[in-house]
Amino acid sequence: MTETLEQVRPRKPSDEPMVDIYTEDGSIRPDFLALVGAAIADRDILFLRHDVARLHESELGDLIAALLPEQRIALISLLGDDFDMTALTEVDEAIRLEIFEQIPNDKIAEAIGDLDSDDAVYILEDLDEEDREEILAQLPFTERVRLRRALDYPESSAGRRMQTEFVAVPPFWTVGQTIDYMRNGEDLPERFSLIFVIDPTFKLLGAVDLDKILRTKRQVRIEEIMRDTSYPIPAEMDQEEAAQLFEQYDLLSAAVVDENNRLVGVLTIDDMVDVIHEEADEDIKRLAGVGDEELSDSVVSIARSRLPWLFVNLLTAALGASIIGLFDHSIEKMVALAVLMPIVSAIGGNAGTQTMTVSVRALATRELDIYNASRIIRREAGVGLANGLVLATVMGLVAGLWFGDYQLGCVFAVANIINFLVAALGGILIPLLLDRSGADPAVSSAVFVTALTDVCGFFSFLGIATWWFVLH
Amino acid sequence: MTETLEQVRPRKPSDEPMVDIYTEDGSIRPDFLALVGAAIADRDILFLRHDVARLHESELGDLIAALLPEQRIALISLLGDDFDMTALTEVDEAIRLEIFEQIPNDKIAEAIGDLDSDDAVYILEDLDEEDREEILAQLPFTERVRLRRALDYPESSAGRRMQTEFVAVPPFWTVGQTIDYMRNGEDLPERFSLIFVIDPTFKLLGAVDLDKILRTKRQVRIEEIMRDTSYPIPAEMDQEEAAQLFEQYDLLSAAVVDENNRLVGVLTIDDMVDVIHEEADEDIKRLAGVGDEELSDSVVSIARSRLPWLFVNLLTAALGASIIGLFDHSIEKMVALAVLMPIVSAIGGNAGTQTMTVSVRALATRELDIYNASRIIRREAGVGLANGLVLATVMGLVAGLWFGDYQLGCVFAVANIINFLVAALGGILIPLLLDRSGADPAVSSAVFVTALTDVCGFFSFLGIATWWFVLH
Repeated sequence: MTETLEQVRPRKPSDEPMVDIYTEDGSIRPDFLALVGAAIADRDILFLRHDVARLHESELGDLIAALLPEQRIALISLLGDDFDMTALTEVDEAIRLEIFEQIPNDKIAEAIGDLDSDDAVYILEDLDEEDREEILAQLPFTERVRLRRALDYPESSAGRRMQTEFVAVPPFWTVGQTIDYMRNGEDLPERFSLIFVIDPTFKLLGAVDLDKILRTKRQVRIEEIMRDTSYPIPAEMDQEEAAQLFEQYDLLSAAVVDENNRLVGVLTIDDMVDVIHEEADEDIKRLAGVGDEELSDSVVSIARSRLPWLFVNLLTAALGASIIGLFDHSIEKMVALAVLMPIVSAIGGNAGTQTMTVSVRALATRELDIYNASRIIRREAGVGLANGLVLATVMGLVAGLWFGDYQLGCVFAVANIINFLVAALGGILIPLLLDRSGADPAVSSAVFVTALTDVCGFFSFLGIATWWFVLH
Repeated sequence: MTETLEQVRPRKPSDEPMVDIYTEDGSIRPDFLALVGAAIADRDILFLRHDVARLHESELGDLIAALLPEQRIALISLLGDDFDMTALTEVDEAIRLEIFEQIPNDKIAEAIGDLDSDDAVYILEDLDEEDREEILAQLPFTERVRLRRALDYPESSAGRRMQTEFVAVPPFWTVGQTIDYMRNGEDLPERFSLIFVIDPTFKLLGAVDLDKILRTKRQVRIEEIMRDTSYPIPAEMDQEEAAQLFEQYDLLSAAVVDENNRLVGVLTIDDMVDVIHEEADEDIKRLAGVGDEELSDSVVSIARSRLPWLFVNLLTAALGASIIGLFDHSIEKMVALAVLMPIVSAIGGNAGTQTMTVSVRALATRELDIYNASRIIRREAGVGLANGLVLATVMGLVAGLWFGDYQLGCVFAVANIINFLVAALGGILIPLLLDRSGADPAVSSAVFVTALTDVCGFFSFLGIATWWFVLH
């Protein structure tokens, strides 16, 4: 496998080929980690500058996460100005805050001055207000104003994620002038793929793609080739909504404008990719009743964030148990009911979860809407009925044979068919209703669906059994 | 809300402002849909050309999905050459195949000839081989060869997703020559952000970003400003792995090379965004035991794909039931055990699912590795113990009061603490072991974790109760 890997994994670009720092499963290579650890212990600055400082920011971030806490601080202070602070945007918040506690604020201010504005905001927004103000106070005036403005926008808004560095030219410039401006330009952003066209008040007039500039003759005026800026994004827009626009319209970058349509920054696809990833992550975790936790969070904070969901589940489980309590005489007479009962609830819960997951996801990606909802409801009912019939037949047969009681098998089968239908309908209707009422279906669907299948499953199984064996 | 929306939702760029076709929850506006339906019925080609054909491909795709099947075909034939076939890459496979069944292969071939190669491959790969060959046979030679080559790469590989149109220049050209070439260039790709540098055999030598070209004087030679192509991607690499590279290194585009390092195509971030989305989607669905299904799939295909998982769950549920069967005499004597038993399994299952979801996700994003595994295992055990103690105390008190039996409350509490610990450890160790053994933890972790918590939960609760109340 290692040979294949070496062929397959691309090499980092640099003046001189560097070793691949990852093993094939994507973690830092132990031998590399040991080398770095030794170099830190020996204060081997040459090695650190040559083999660590030149890593890509995301590789450096992974390396920092793999080091011991005291090694992290030592590495950063050994590298000094050669340490790329951007790497700290790539590690978990808990690790970042732990590191910043050890570094004096004036050092942080110095490092933040070198960052792109979006990275600087990303780091500053997590700090407590006192530290943040102290750091901001040490920055040059224009930079401070820029960062303050971005930090004034609500958390998770486009204004927070935008880069305030961009290239903007007036509409009457020619392509030639624009190219010359870029050739001489000092304060251009590090990377850009779009040139904005603005009026003297920074009102956004349009945009020109770089390839368009390159395809056009020098004497042509910018206003002749500029296009409507595709989808200028209001700075207050939620980052998730902005990411959806990037995704739907295949944008590489987009202008961020204030309420007067004045250009204030630019959002780029690489930041939106992170947002798309985060949002998918959140959806997965919410479905399982896990909040916004990170791998480096402490036991206490994680235990506390997971507890409410467990409590809610305890309540719904107690509801299911109280249904069982109604039938305690039947169970006393026929203990097989107690043995089979958890199967009804487990299978019903699973069938409901399948439908619910598909529905929640389709709502999140906006695939499920008023045009197909009724068709999907019918389809899920069909799937529930079909799988219910197949599985209930098997379950009925097995239960009948297990307890040597074909009547029990029949009752078990009928209860399961009912529960499959309930699970299918609950699995789609509950997310739809939650969505319609403005709640996030990812957060609460699971509780309601499993409560529904538990209650209905226990009730139908024990109810039918009581009616058949006890009252009948 | 509607006012805010109108301000917030950006406008589609065009010669003339168009109406926003979406409602605020992201589905097609009913009035717009009605207009389009009427225009199709009236064969109002002017309206369709003006207000439908000019939609963005993704908007057109959403519109098609919202139309009735017969309206879709009518719209496509009414628009004829004005219909942008790319829109069909934006709809579900089932809808796409249904449409293609109604369109003669020579019409499809004509439309495919106008598409970017990646879109063409995306459409062709789903067709059955006969149709595909018939369509390919009608394409011009070079195009056919290009598409065949892409289709020869394995499904979901970088070679399938790449665009075979790219800009490549020799290293000895100057910036001026390159700009002139692009100004005159006829067969340039529609959009590009990177120029590749190749030798006469198409071996990849480097790349130049467009902004670099624009910042550099005309007489400078390309080889002086080219950089190592960051992360050339082997055509056989899985698209998921390629997307991870884009994400880690913030790439906008990357060269795709064959086994001899010859440039064969280019991957762009917009396609990788779709891959990132798909993969997150798959992870969410797999965790719930749902396969690769789409919203437009039929009842039969969905029922069939969900059935195996339900069967597996039936087996594990039966395993849990058989544990209960071991203690049927205890239950007969003390029916309260049957009432409380499902609570143990529900809460244990939930606690296990929380830990498991976090672990599976951290493995998928490569955050969980050998360096933090032991810390995370200890942390999860801590979280399980902490929440176990809190909840078990509550549960024990409630159960004790409910049945007026404090001893039962104690037994219930102890069993739950044990089960919380088992859930926490199982929730992390099972995904880790599956991952280590090469299996996809997302697919099978849930079965094992819930089976474990069920078996251990039932066994500890009924076992301790039997020992205490029956044997003691």
